[in-house]
Amino acid sequence: MVTMLEVTDITPGVSCCAPLVKEPIGQTDAEQLAVTLKALADPARLRLLSIVASSEGQEACVCDLIEPVGLSQPTVSHHLKVLTEAGFLSRTKRGTWAYYRLEPNALTSVADFLTT
Amino acid sequence: MVTMLEVTDITPGVSCCAPLVKEPIGQTDAEQLAVTLKALADPARLRLLSIVASSEGQEACVCDLIEPVGLSQPTVSHHLKVLTEAGFLSRTKRGTWAYYRLEPNALTSVADFLTT
Repeated sequence: MVTMLEVTDITPGVSCCAPLVKEPIGQTDAEQLAVTLKALADPARLRLLSIVASSEGQEACVCDLIEPVGLSQPTVSHHLKVLTEAGFLSRTKRGTWAYYRLEPNALTSVADFLTT
Repeated sequence: MVTMLEVTDITPGVSCCAPLVKEPIGQTDAEQLAVTLKALADPARLRLLSIVASSEGQEACVCDLIEPVGLSQPTVSHHLKVLTEAGFLSRTKRGTWAYYRLEPNALTSVADFLTT
């Protein structure tokens, strides 16, 4: 099942807010962070992101991502689009295929917020 | 709106898996982590968690959490239950009120997974 997410308002890779143990997060920051976390909170997207992140050069061809997760190409492409719009991946087209590269700053921003 | 989540299979505070940049996450770990992230991926829950986390002793009475987030007591209690079942908070009853305390290990586990 493909779940549609509204991720259009996300600014990729932008750090959001002070660590949550430091001060209460405001409503606007909480809304933005919730959208970012929703983009991560899917088993297929976590698997795709970790395959890209642990690939050589933290980059992978979409053609090498379909078989490991056992999903159709349109479904994989949808999940990669959600991750890209949330700032976790960037996309480059080379010839026939799209390549996805990890954008570590987006992950670091979320990790920093959660760090106690 | 209160969204129901299945969080019954979560083992509170258990660290899940190697950092995603290190090796591809397996399906079972991805499913568990997705449930944990879904528990976080809500603006009201992020606000409640950050209020508790930044309170003295990282503990707060439910009576002090209702006004800051501007939601009804049943809705606040539901969100606190989701956070507790996901391992991010623990709950103690003292007299009339329930008190919620941050369980930092659960957050650290998620942050460690996302750390690049």
